[in-house]
Amino acid sequence: MAEDKALTARSEDFSAWYNEVVQRAELAGYSPVRGCMVIRPHGYAIWELMQAALDRMFKETGHQNAYFPLFIPQSFLQREAEHVEGFAPETALVTHGGGKQLEEPLVVRPTSEAIIWPIMADWIQSYRDLPMLINQWANVVRWEMRTRPFLRTLEFLWQEGHTAHATEEDAEAETLLILGIYRKFMEEWMAMPPLTGVKTEWDRFAGAVRTYACEALMQDNWALQAGTSHNLGQNFARAFDVKYQTEEGEHEYVWSTSWGVSTRLLGGLVMTHGDDLGLVLPPRLAPIQLVIVPIWKSDRQRTEVLEASARLKSQLEGNVRVRLDDRDTLNPGAKYYEWEGKGVPIRVEIGPNDVEKGQVTVVRRFAGEAKLRKRVIAASEAPVSLAKLLEEMQQELLDAAIRRREEHSYRGVTDYEEFKKIIASVGGFIYTGYCGAKECETRVKDDTKATVRLIPNEDFASESYPERCICGRKAVQEVVWARAY
Amino acid sequence: MAEDKALTARSEDFSAWYNEVVQRAELAGYSPVRGCMVIRPHGYAIWELMQAALDRMFKETGHQNAYFPLFIPQSFLQREAEHVEGFAPETALVTHGGGKQLEEPLVVRPTSEAIIWPIMADWIQSYRDLPMLINQWANVVRWEMRTRPFLRTLEFLWQEGHTAHATEEDAEAETLLILGIYRKFMEEWMAMPPLTGVKTEWDRFAGAVRTYACEALMQDNWALQAGTSHNLGQNFARAFDVKYQTEEGEHEYVWSTSWGVSTRLLGGLVMTHGDDLGLVLPPRLAPIQLVIVPIWKSDRQRTEVLEASARLKSQLEGNVRVRLDDRDTLNPGAKYYEWEGKGVPIRVEIGPNDVEKGQVTVVRRFAGEAKLRKRVIAASEAPVSLAKLLEEMQQELLDAAIRRREEHSYRGVTDYEEFKKIIASVGGFIYTGYCGAKECETRVKDDTKATVRLIPNEDFASESYPERCICGRKAVQEVVWARAY
Repeated sequence: MAEDKALTARSEDFSAWYNEVVQRAELAGYSPVRGCMVIRPHGYAIWELMQAALDRMFKETGHQNAYFPLFIPQSFLQREAEHVEGFAPETALVTHGGGKQLEEPLVVRPTSEAIIWPIMADWIQSYRDLPMLINQWANVVRWEMRTRPFLRTLEFLWQEGHTAHATEEDAEAETLLILGIYRKFMEEWMAMPPLTGVKTEWDRFAGAVRTYACEALMQDNWALQAGTSHNLGQNFARAFDVKYQTEEGEHEYVWSTSWGVSTRLLGGLVMTHGDDLGLVLPPRLAPIQLVIVPIWKSDRQRTEVLEASARLKSQLEGNVRVRLDDRDTLNPGAKYYEWEGKGVPIRVEIGPNDVEKGQVTVVRRFAGEAKLRKRVIAASEAPVSLAKLLEEMQQELLDAAIRRREEHSYRGVTDYEEFKKIIASVGGFIYTGYCGAKECETRVKDDTKATVRLIPNEDFASESYPERCICGRKAVQEVVWARAY
Repeated sequence: MAEDKALTARSEDFSAWYNEVVQRAELAGYSPVRGCMVIRPHGYAIWELMQAALDRMFKETGHQNAYFPLFIPQSFLQREAEHVEGFAPETALVTHGGGKQLEEPLVVRPTSEAIIWPIMADWIQSYRDLPMLINQWANVVRWEMRTRPFLRTLEFLWQEGHTAHATEEDAEAETLLILGIYRKFMEEWMAMPPLTGVKTEWDRFAGAVRTYACEALMQDNWALQAGTSHNLGQNFARAFDVKYQTEEGEHEYVWSTSWGVSTRLLGGLVMTHGDDLGLVLPPRLAPIQLVIVPIWKSDRQRTEVLEASARLKSQLEGNVRVRLDDRDTLNPGAKYYEWEGKGVPIRVEIGPNDVEKGQVTVVRRFAGEAKLRKRVIAASEAPVSLAKLLEEMQQELLDAAIRRREEHSYRGVTDYEEFKKIIASVGGFIYTGYCGAKECETRVKDDTKATVRLIPNEDFASESYPERCICGRKAVQEVVWARAY
């Protein structure tokens, strides 16, 4: 790639910018299979850091991983009426195996409820087996027509939790526990602060009685649904006959939940922090947190700066994910371009002048600004102060994202003309009273592309909300609107 | 499960014993999809420990993870002639997506060469991009007719490495590097010491110029092919036009390799160490290395033993994967039965008498013996001595497995009658001279079910081998025979 090729500016064409950042950062690539992407090593390394953090949180709260079959007999998907209605149109069907036509086609899992519950039914006998808290890291396939890297792909990677409980209250508590874990992960690791709340009835997961979601605001002020946690009631237990014996000897259906986040989070990460220079990564999710670029002209200088660079590297190791870029085949400018594009938070330049003066030159990204900040620090202070700088940068990114979200949150909107004006000009999260009618949302969607994202949880709900819906009817609840990916 | 239900003895019916151990240890279960298993939490936790160890070794040697599509257009599979011949008969075909028939069926990957190379072709431009060292953790599907948990399933989990190199020597060095990593992992983590060597021409991976393999001897003296590393020459580079520009500006095909191990390793682990009490796990791969079972009758005792148990647990944590089984709903005997079946290496019993005397009772599995060894140690010594005991047990398992392999290795066999006698009585690895003819192997296989497992690498080759093949013709090489899974 040409070193001087600038990205399309975010302000000019956000969608083009997004695609270019994904390419330049080498996060993902297109594949010869329609709608399927390749997750390239840099993208996959970020996903591995996400997985590790989430997996730890799941395990700390008593969940265990398992692995269920990729294929679901078609008739199984049909057992839960709403579930099949929701997923059947997007399925990929295996009709032939080993050269022969199958008696019954197999669905490539779009989600695993319909294969997990008939199996878990055997694992659950008595109240002693509950709660059963299972998670799976897997690939799933949904036959989407319009796809975009990470945001919507035919195949994607995700985790799907599936749990069974003795009571309705326990299932609801689990659903909320996971929603809290997702929010914490998005805030503390991704520096992408989401709203949390409940979906409307018609926007629930197919087969759920209640769907909670995290919705994060991207830099173009569109929302991204970034994680969902479903209370499934006894719907799947009834469909797949999952019962347990109570302490009193009765046989009862279990109460179940399911919940998931996917590689879509990588798209959210790009659109939350990226700038016109390329990807910006929060340090906790940066596979390389700091890159050292030695600069030399003569061979003598080369030895000197490489020595100083290697010293700093070994001082940082263990504490910081550091890379020394000592490639002879690229000049420093080309290296800067590559690591900026890949979102490495800190670059340390070490040249002959730095060595002589016992210093290093620190160049860093700054949240929200498409420029670099450069300063010089003493080499002796570098190990401690660079590790500290990474923590500060993590916090700065979160602060900036919260600030941006709040700047683009509009509370107590009652006038539909004002609503339309906000959407047409800047966009963001618009809080209004809501009549609760689906037709009302349909009209707004037709007019503005905005939809009800959620009924906000108490952490996000306004102190009070307008008495009237934007359609003029009586409001029964507060909702948050936005245009969404 | 009834507490007193004994497993079938290994000596009586090894195959039945295997299936029972897999069930009792809750490693895997059957699923409603023919040939597909479920990996249950205990089995999956072992797989995660295996993954972590292997992944570290791959990364330490410069490999990066990525993720490629599950689906391969059927025509892609056909581009490499031998490859399609090998894999086409076992493919699962997706013919419908999103409710419509596809123009071209998609193959659910049986292995990923045919989708990885057309994609990696775009990533490789010049010699600077080489070597390209990629690994993928994924699920694959091969339409097997006869399946057994872990050993042969329709879908399985594995890692598949795919690398590209500038020279034939580099590709061969990579193939051998990985073979060495596999061997090291099997020895040091699984305590399952394999033979390594080269496969015969007709037993190569479909499309490879050379296939190296690890073959381990199970307790029934059948061999298990446990990992393979393939030098693909330029076969796939030619089929998918993968070229790079040399330093001199020429365009050359790359040299490539591929290599993999799968959840089959879990089957190997069971069959290497399990005994008539159930699973036996080498400590390094035991999700729970030590279980503490408190024993009490009165409430006062309960408080006392739980206190002592919790103290030991906290002393061990960080160093040992420890579980305190303080369930009120099970008696100690039921707990012993459960953890023995699951292969937990050490059980520590703490009763009122132990608390009084400042001691703990240590019960451990012993390699190769289906019994337990019990001794009493001072509570003050327990943290250090139990951690040390785990290391000793790891080594004992490896030593026992090497001893068993050597006891069942027969070198320099020349007489076919003797060969048949060994196979019919005890079995094992039989080293002979070999004429190199496929028909010779076919005859032996028809007579005895034994096949040529490999041409041993120098670490395993005999100092000299017989001049004659067991068929009487001139021998051109030494080979190792065994009946194999």
